[in-house]
Amino acid sequence: MKKGLFISLEGPDGSGKSTQIQYLKSYFDENNIPCVFTREPGGTDIGESLREFILDVNNGSMCDMTEALLYAASRAQHVSQLIAPALEEGKVVVCDRFLDSGIAYQGYGRNLGECVRVINEYAVQGCLPDLTIFIDVDPEIGKLRIGNRENDRLEKEKLLFHKRVYEGYMDLVKAEPRRIKTIDGRKSKEAMRHDILEEINPLLRDGGFI
Amino acid sequence: MKKGLFISLEGPDGSGKSTQIQYLKSYFDENNIPCVFTREPGGTDIGESLREFILDVNNGSMCDMTEALLYAASRAQHVSQLIAPALEEGKVVVCDRFLDSGIAYQGYGRNLGECVRVINEYAVQGCLPDLTIFIDVDPEIGKLRIGNRENDRLEKEKLLFHKRVYEGYMDLVKAEPRRIKTIDGRKSKEAMRHDILEEINPLLRDGGFI
Repeated sequence: MKKGLFISLEGPDGSGKSTQIQYLKSYFDENNIPCVFTREPGGTDIGESLREFILDVNNGSMCDMTEALLYAASRAQHVSQLIAPALEEGKVVVCDRFLDSGIAYQGYGRNLGECVRVINEYAVQGCLPDLTIFIDVDPEIGKLRIGNRENDRLEKEKLLFHKRVYEGYMDLVKAEPRRIKTIDGRKSKEAMRHDILEEINPLLRDGGFI
Repeated sequence: MKKGLFISLEGPDGSGKSTQIQYLKSYFDENNIPCVFTREPGGTDIGESLREFILDVNNGSMCDMTEALLYAASRAQHVSQLIAPALEEGKVVVCDRFLDSGIAYQGYGRNLGECVRVINEYAVQGCLPDLTIFIDVDPEIGKLRIGNRENDRLEKEKLLFHKRVYEGYMDLVKAEPRRIKTIDGRKSKEAMRHDILEEINPLLRDGGFI
């Protein structure tokens, strides 16, 4: 069924993901590659509403399990309404955060453990990235980079939380080295762009996109 | 830890649950029983917002898995913020619909199957009803009773859906006869009230509430 290519980008807050996604957009445009750029949480009207709901500072009483289930709900909608149909149409889907974020942030960060993976595997119903780019930035540096952007509930979390998230990403990279490729986030933006294209181009060639 | 008593009421739409819950409220008040009456989806501010979101006719593009995860999210919040604390304070909690509704409506009605149970067991983290009153009404009669109240998305669903839900309840009753007690929904309101109190009173006595 699936004819397209599914790429996700992951990394701690402040890893420079957004800049790299902008670079990828330009690159795909220049090469006339049929693509969809999307993000999590969000990606659909229902997903965007849930994103607002999760990040709303007024929902501070939200328990960790509720949060994890809302992320999974948003992800289920994203897959069924946008990602899976785009892949079936043969497009390249580039997603800013996906299931690995759920495992790292809720499973490790919130200490919910393995149940996050189980819940999310139900949510995505087999629709998993072909390639995941992990931008590796020390969580202390990431936290410094985002500086004063403390405008939502998640960004108010403590460094300890971000260290657990990072540990989660490290475990994922170790467990799935063929899917998850690590990019050194200490490099310059241009060097990172180069390294990311080195990972993506072989798959684009295999798929006949370039 | 748990010192209170957890009672849930279940039944197809149009089973007359709301009337019976009103009767129970009066009975508990008359007997000065410390209690909390609540409902699903909802029960907390976050849960009520999610209830509105799920039932919003504008969210017609919502996929079944998203819906199931949102119900589970609402339930997780309900348990952690309201039900578990009230039980720890030694109160009787009466909940209009709980986990069995998830299994019957999403697992059977939406054909999502066993994953609904798994997701919900994570959501409630061991907080399960001591007694569940199931008001047994033929889904065709239930559908007739609710008549023209077709004002939200769920009530627009077809009879076939309600028949699957009913089949779900039947399987649950068969699997857990000690917890789930069936009340004949064809009886008069007063006769049903009597039958429900017959089931509840022994537990109230055991718990020293009456």
